[in-house]
Amino acid sequence: MLEKTTRMNYLYDFYQSLLTPKQRSYMSLYYLDDFSLGEIAEEYGVSRQAVYDNIKRTEAMLEEYEEKLLLFKKFQERNEILAQLRKRIEDSSIDSSVCLKLIDELEILD
Amino acid sequence: MLEKTTRMNYLYDFYQSLLTPKQRSYMSLYYLDDFSLGEIAEEYGVSRQAVYDNIKRTEAMLEEYEEKLLLFKKFQERNEILAQLRKRIEDSSIDSSVCLKLIDELEILD
Repeated sequence: MLEKTTRMNYLYDFYQSLLTPKQRSYMSLYYLDDFSLGEIAEEYGVSRQAVYDNIKRTEAMLEEYEEKLLLFKKFQERNEILAQLRKRIEDSSIDSSVCLKLIDELEILD
Repeated sequence: MLEKTTRMNYLYDFYQSLLTPKQRSYMSLYYLDDFSLGEIAEEYGVSRQAVYDNIKRTEAMLEEYEEKLLLFKKFQERNEILAQLRKRIEDSSIDSSVCLKLIDELEILD
């Protein structure tokens, strides 16, 4: 569950601009502010089921956007390469050709 | 016009997965293969006006996606920083703290 929450937080972060204001409100309360479904339902004067359905639909939408645009996947790949590059520079074990190869990889990822 | 074509090529590249198959076909023929509106209309057995309207709507959609997700803008910003980093490493004028600062900037951009 924690893993799913982390993933949804990331997907929400990347794709929230494509959601409706209501979807954003429910997702933000549920995933960022840790409200329960019942608390959100009470806040908005709707049924718990309505909130649940909306959030499930939004989660599916976020996964569809990720399938199409891969922003979260590319973000992870980029960060992995950046970490390697950072380590090489911090260690002062700078092999230029290796660093340049890492930069090539970053450019291709875009 | 050339500038607009280049921009549309990039936006199409970033957001084509969010378009319908028909939108993708028209945009790809018009912007990548340099077909005229008339040639696309003939190919699909529709009016020139229908092709024009579809392409205009698609262009507007691509600009809306860019307004929301900024993928092209971030791509340009990242590439600018990567070019700086590449230059420093190629010149062997590696100042670790500068390189690390550039990496920080890349991470924040995501």
